[in-house]
Amino acid sequence: MNFDLSAQIPLLERTPAMLRAMLDGLPSEWTDATEGPETWSPYVIVGHLVHCERVNWVPRARMILEHGPARPFAPFDREPPPREGARQTLGDLLDEFAGVRAENLATLASWRLDERQLALEGLHTEFGRVTLSQLLATWVAHDLAHVAQVARVMAKQYREAVGPWRAFLPILDR
Amino acid sequence: MNFDLSAQIPLLERTPAMLRAMLDGLPSEWTDATEGPETWSPYVIVGHLVHCERVNWVPRARMILEHGPARPFAPFDREPPPREGARQTLGDLLDEFAGVRAENLATLASWRLDERQLALEGLHTEFGRVTLSQLLATWVAHDLAHVAQVARVMAKQYREAVGPWRAFLPILDR
Repeated sequence: MNFDLSAQIPLLERTPAMLRAMLDGLPSEWTDATEGPETWSPYVIVGHLVHCERVNWVPRARMILEHGPARPFAPFDREPPPREGARQTLGDLLDEFAGVRAENLATLASWRLDERQLALEGLHTEFGRVTLSQLLATWVAHDLAHVAQVARVMAKQYREAVGPWRAFLPILDR
Repeated sequence: MNFDLSAQIPLLERTPAMLRAMLDGLPSEWTDATEGPETWSPYVIVGHLVHCERVNWVPRARMILEHGPARPFAPFDREPPPREGARQTLGDLLDEFAGVRAENLATLASWRLDERQLALEGLHTEFGRVTLSQLLATWVAHDLAHVAQVARVMAKQYREAVGPWRAFLPILDR
């Protein structure tokens, strides 16, 4: 599928609702579960997505539109920053994600991007030149990768419990 | 995580809403997309889940409760049966899935399963003896495996469009 902004928007719009449907109100034995040491729980994944909304997609798109490849993107720390004080509830994080995503999509819409702009380039510190359309396609694919990860993390909690069906469920050993 | 019926129910209850949040109203370029020949689209995956609700989980659980390992499970054809006449819309399939899932969870609740019953065995034609709790854990893991698959199938549509970010998104080449 070629990148098409009008096909992308409906997916970006629904990611907060996907995650809410998957996670909101679930017992913490699911939402804090991980795939092992140094791996992320659904809670941490949602925090990472909030962080990306704030520092990654739209700020980088703006950098491309305003400066092109003249200024490299700010390095991106994939770890969510530690949050001060009381830990936010997952419900709060899901609300925050929905809010910042809506703001970012409103910003994107306000740009009324055309083909020429989508082909503009920015400078990634590892990859070199990348286009705005590649950045925006990555926004979608990154959402879906983390939705799949949330499902996988939860599925793996039953790796043993499924008994011999494990052989039919490759996700449990991925 | 050990299998615990009370932890399982909230996940099984929300799978129809997860899939609705992911798919309902999306353009068919997403919902009919596949990972290549002989692979499933999100539309086909939802049809498979409906089929499993009708012929797999609850019928097999009933077989265990009524006959134990004395009668093997009916063989399960993982392909959804061809549907007669006009193809159902994805919205119709999602409604059908929500309906049969709710019926099946009502049946499950009506059994008021205790630890003794969860340990009862049935006969799988390939695996041999399996327990009711293994079957029910597989119901959950199978849901989540297909939710992850739906996200992966859609993400892969942007395998080329993301450009060099493909290296950071292993889901695109899985």
